[in-house]
Amino acid sequence: LNIALLAGDGIGPEVIDQAVKVSDKIAEKFGHDISWTPALTGAAAIDAVGEPYPDSTHAVCEAADAVLFGAIGHPRFDNDPSAKVRPEQGLLKMRQKLGLFANVRPTFTFPSLIDKSPLKRERIEGTDLIILRELTGGIYFGERGRKDNNDTAFDTMTYTRGEVERIARKGFELAMTRSKKLCCVDKANVLESSRLWRETVQAMEKEYPEVTVSYEFVDAVAMRLVQWPNSYDVMITMNLFGDILTDEASVISGSMGLMPSASVGEKAKLYEPIHGSYPQAAGKDIANPLATILSAAMMFEDFGLTEEAKSIRDVVNKSLAEGVVTEDLAEGAKAYKTSEVGDWLA
Amino acid sequence: LNIALLAGDGIGPEVIDQAVKVSDKIAEKFGHDISWTPALTGAAAIDAVGEPYPDSTHAVCEAADAVLFGAIGHPRFDNDPSAKVRPEQGLLKMRQKLGLFANVRPTFTFPSLIDKSPLKRERIEGTDLIILRELTGGIYFGERGRKDNNDTAFDTMTYTRGEVERIARKGFELAMTRSKKLCCVDKANVLESSRLWRETVQAMEKEYPEVTVSYEFVDAVAMRLVQWPNSYDVMITMNLFGDILTDEASVISGSMGLMPSASVGEKAKLYEPIHGSYPQAAGKDIANPLATILSAAMMFEDFGLTEEAKSIRDVVNKSLAEGVVTEDLAEGAKAYKTSEVGDWLA
Ligand SMILES: CC(C)[C@H](C(=O)O)[C@@H](O)C(=O)O
Ligand SMILES: CC(C)[C@H](C(=O)O)[C@@H](O)C(=O)O
Repeated sequence: LNIALLAGDGIGPEVIDQAVKVSDKIAEKFGHDISWTPALTGAAAIDAVGEPYPDSTHAVCEAADAVLFGAIGHPRFDNDPSAKVRPEQGLLKMRQKLGLFANVRPTFTFPSLIDKSPLKRERIEGTDLIILRELTGGIYFGERGRKDNNDTAFDTMTYTRGEVERIARKGFELAMTRSKKLCCVDKANVLESSRLWRETVQAMEKEYPEVTVSYEFVDAVAMRLVQWPNSYDVMITMNLFGDILTDEASVISGSMGLMPSASVGEKAKLYEPIHGSYPQAAGKDIANPLATILSAAMMFEDFGLTEEAKSIRDVVNKSLAEGVVTEDLAEGAKAYKTSEVGDWLA
Repeated sequence: LNIALLAGDGIGPEVIDQAVKVSDKIAEKFGHDISWTPALTGAAAIDAVGEPYPDSTHAVCEAADAVLFGAIGHPRFDNDPSAKVRPEQGLLKMRQKLGLFANVRPTFTFPSLIDKSPLKRERIEGTDLIILRELTGGIYFGERGRKDNNDTAFDTMTYTRGEVERIARKGFELAMTRSKKLCCVDKANVLESSRLWRETVQAMEKEYPEVTVSYEFVDAVAMRLVQWPNSYDVMITMNLFGDILTDEASVISGSMGLMPSASVGEKAKLYEPIHGSYPQAAGKDIANPLATILSAAMMFEDFGLTEEAKSIRDVVNKSLAEGVVTEDLAEGAKAYKTSEVGDWLA
C-alpha cells in the first residue's frame, strides 16, 4: 500500500504520527507493506510554497492508493474569510481535483464515553448512523460573485442528475450492508435542486427493492437528530446540508474527538479525523489521536482488510476501557501523552 | 386593535380560538378593543378558492395592525413537494407580499419542563436566546430552474447589502435591549453572499460600539447550539440557515410545543406558534394552545403593551405550575382539553 500522508496544521502532525505507528504495526502483524509519502497542505503549504494544495501534493495524492489526512487551519486566517489564500481553499481544491464526491461520516457511541454527551443517555444509546455528504457539488462549487457595484452577492446551488445518482448509489449500497434504511435529506418544498435529488432517488428505489427510503426536510432532520439520533441509519444529503448536519451529529455521541471519516471518489480515497487543527494544543503532545487512528481503520476496511480494521478498533476500545487516554478523556485520572497512547496501541 | 386571524389547517383553528379567548380577556381587563377579522389560508384556502394565500386574505392582512397565524399543512400534500399548488407556497407568498423580512424566534426554558429536553439539565439551564432569521431573501426567493433537458437543477442564493443591513439593524437593536451580544452566523469561508453579510455587519459595528459581535460558521453553530445553548443570546442569520438552526434550537429547551414566534417587516407584524398543523390531533380538542397564546403575548409586547404581555406570560406560568395542561405535558396526571386550558387562562 502506497499512502499519501498529509499531516497539515496544528495537531495534525502529532495525531498523524500515531496513526502511522499503529498502521505500521498492523502491517507488520498481518504481513503488509505500507509506504508513506508525506506532502504539504494547509497553512504549512501556504508558508512553504504559497498555496494550500500545491500541484506537487496533488501528484503525490493521485499516485497513492489512499490519503491519510490530519487537519488544516491556522488562527491567523480566522478573522478574514475573504483573504485571497486560505487553508480551506486547499481543502476544497483537493476534494474537487481528487473527485472525492462522497464524504462518509459515521456517528456512533462508545459505551464508556456516553455520559460525556450533552444528550441524555437514553436518547443516544444505540446510535449508529452514517451521513453521506455530497462533497464536490452544490453551492460549494457553483457560480458565485458580486453585482450592482459590489452591493449584491450571489452563490449558485447546482446539481446534475448524474451527481445525485452516484452519491445516492453509494447510499443504497451502504444501506444494503446495514439495516436497509436510507433517508434522503433535502429541502424539496423550496429548492429546485432538492426536487431533482428527490426525484432521482425516487427513480432509483426500484433498483433496490429491499431498501426502505424515507424523505425528510433538512429542518426536520436538524430537530430529530437531537431528539432521536438512534432512529437514523444511512442518510444522504447535499454538500451544504451535510456540512451542517454532520457537525451537528458529531456532538451527540459525546465522542466527537474520536469520530473518523472518509471521503471517496471513483478511485481516490481519503481518511481524516473530523476534528480540526486545534492550534492551542499544537506541539504539546496532548491531542487525542484516536479519531485519526480510527480513520486509518476505515482505510483498512475499505481495502477489504477487515481483520486489520477490527484489530485497530479492538485495541482502541481496550485503551478506553483501561484508561490509556489523553487528557480530554482522563477525567481526573492519569492523562497519557499523544505519543504514549500511540505507543500503547501499537 | 384590528387583528387578522389566519387559523389555517389541522389544529390551527383550535389553538387560535384559545389565543383569541385570552386576548379578548386581556383587552377587557386593560380596556382595549380588539376586532378580529378571519381569513383563509393553507390547505383550507386551497380547498375553498384554489390557492393557499388568496388576494382577499392578503387584503385583510394588509389592512390589519397585526396577523395572528395558526399553522398550515395537510398530509395530502406531503409526498409531493413538486405539486403545483401547496400550502407552503402560501406561506412564502405571504412572507414576501407582507414584507416580513425578520423572523424572530426565541428559545427559552420553562423550569418545570426542563427535564423534557433531550439535553441534560446542566446544559440548558438559563438558555434564553433569540434567532433572527432573514425571511424574504436568500435562496428561498432567488432564481431557480432546470437546464440541460431537465437534468440540471439550480437555485440562487442572493443578498443585497440593504437586505443584510435591515435585519442586522434589528439584531443590533435587540442586542442593545438584552445582553449586548450579537452573533452573526454565516458560511463566509465558502459563500460570497455570506461574505457580504459579514462585511456589512462588520461595517455596522461602529454604530453600536456597546455591542460585542461574534462571527461564527453555521456548521460550528449547529454543534455549539447542542453543546452550550446558553452561551448564545441574539443571533442573526440568512433564510436557509435560519430555517435549520431555529428548528434545531427549538428542541433543546424541551418546550418545543410552547415556543412562540414573530415575523415582522417595516410595517407588517405576524405572530405564530412554531409548531406545525399536527393533523393527527385536528378536531380532537387535545392540542397544546400555549405556543399560540405566547405568540399573542409577543404581539402585545410589540404594540408596547408590556403589562398585557406580562399578564399572559404570568398566567401561562401559573397553568404550568398548577398542572392545567394538555396531554402532551400531563405526565400521567389529569390532562385538560385545549378549550379547557384556554378557559382557565382567560
Ligand atoms: C472548512 C470548510 C470549507 C469545510 C466545509 O464546509 O466543507 C469544513 O467545514 C468541513 O466540513 O470539512
Ligand atoms: C414550510 C417551509 C417552506 C418553511 C420554511 O422553510 O421557511 C418552514 O420550514 C418554516 O420554517 O416556516
